[in-house]
Amino acid sequence: MELYTYYRSTSSYRVRIALALKGLAYQSLPVNLLQGEQRGAGYVAVNPQGRVPALRTDGGELLVQSPAIIEYLEEVYPQPALLPATAEARAKVRGVAAIIGCDVHPLHNVSVLNRLRQAGQDEGQVNQWIGHWISQGLAAVEQLIGDHGFCFGEQPGLADVYLIPQLYAAERFNIDLDSFPRILRVAALAAVHPAFSKAHPAQQPDSPAQ
Amino acid sequence: MELYTYYRSTSSYRVRIALALKGLAYQSLPVNLLQGEQRGAGYVAVNPQGRVPALRTDGGELLVQSPAIIEYLEEVYPQPALLPATAEARAKVRGVAAIIGCDVHPLHNVSVLNRLRQAGQDEGQVNQWIGHWISQGLAAVEQLIGDHGFCFGEQPGLADVYLIPQLYAAERFNIDLDSFPRILRVAALAAVHPAFSKAHPAQQPDSPAQ
Repeated sequence: MELYTYYRSTSSYRVRIALALKGLAYQSLPVNLLQGEQRGAGYVAVNPQGRVPALRTDGGELLVQSPAIIEYLEEVYPQPALLPATAEARAKVRGVAAIIGCDVHPLHNVSVLNRLRQAGQDEGQVNQWIGHWISQGLAAVEQLIGDHGFCFGEQPGLADVYLIPQLYAAERFNIDLDSFPRILRVAALAAVHPAFSKAHPAQQPDSPAQ
Repeated sequence: MELYTYYRSTSSYRVRIALALKGLAYQSLPVNLLQGEQRGAGYVAVNPQGRVPALRTDGGELLVQSPAIIEYLEEVYPQPALLPATAEARAKVRGVAAIIGCDVHPLHNVSVLNRLRQAGQDEGQVNQWIGHWISQGLAAVEQLIGDHGFCFGEQPGLADVYLIPQLYAAERFNIDLDSFPRILRVAALAAVHPAFSKAHPAQQPDSPAQ
């Protein structure tokens, strides 16, 4: 498989975690968002939306959008499972993933922040905007996840795949997480888990840290 | 089943279409977003995020977030299927759903628009904001869906479940759809399909039209 990725992209980071948890090998194809490579003709021919991530499967199919890519990986490479066994439990895990994937991350995507700046918002207002949506979303997540282990038990799963990149963004934006003890517990577990470490932005070939 | 819903909520509308396509009976429990019922203690006890939709299953479980609810319905009530058979085809359908569910709708959610107004944006700026995200997202959808029938073939599916409520929002916000012939073709088919009609905002018990 080939993954079009950017080291600091929240949604690319999700897919990298899912690939690492499942022990799947892939080639990273970095797309430099700061240099606008996502809008270049070469990449738009790959993904007409001009966003990362995109996954080229072993069969040569090009898949876009991290929620769709991660569900694909779960269907084709079911072990270890990112979702629990019953439909109700799966819906609860997917619900937490969707809070992050729909109600938090889209609101601090770099394209959205740039649009706010173009509309005359200063950096203080942009930071207030980011803090509002991340804090509100994480407060809901805090109430919906479990009391021990990762979000929903001893093994990491889909909710953790979404939560950890969101926490990386929260840290970049200096969001206070002290009122979220369950989330901090999950973060501490992920920090020492090899799959989460392998997928971390600082470990990517296009990271300035490399 | 019981569905906490608001007639004009894009994400409630999605779940109503999925329920109607599968021929499932449910009770509507309207939550008046204009009157702030979603933030009342009664509803927050149901859904700590204070958003609609939420689904109470026949087993009494409370599920939140439309993407999670719709995947639940697909798993528990698989016929008629909203997703195709192969993992690759499923990922392409879910990719279109995610463009709408993650990159379009969250940016014109009523809470986001109110936040823009609080940040000093006037109605002209708010309308420009809405138009930008809807037009950009639908341009990507237009390139990814098929050349005939609904988004991905003769029968409606998950991508249509997301697209039709997004078009209802586009119409409310006066977005020009003339450059999207494939999308307009899907809209015309849905307009005469009984499940889409049943789920339409104007047909809901909490609609002023009722």
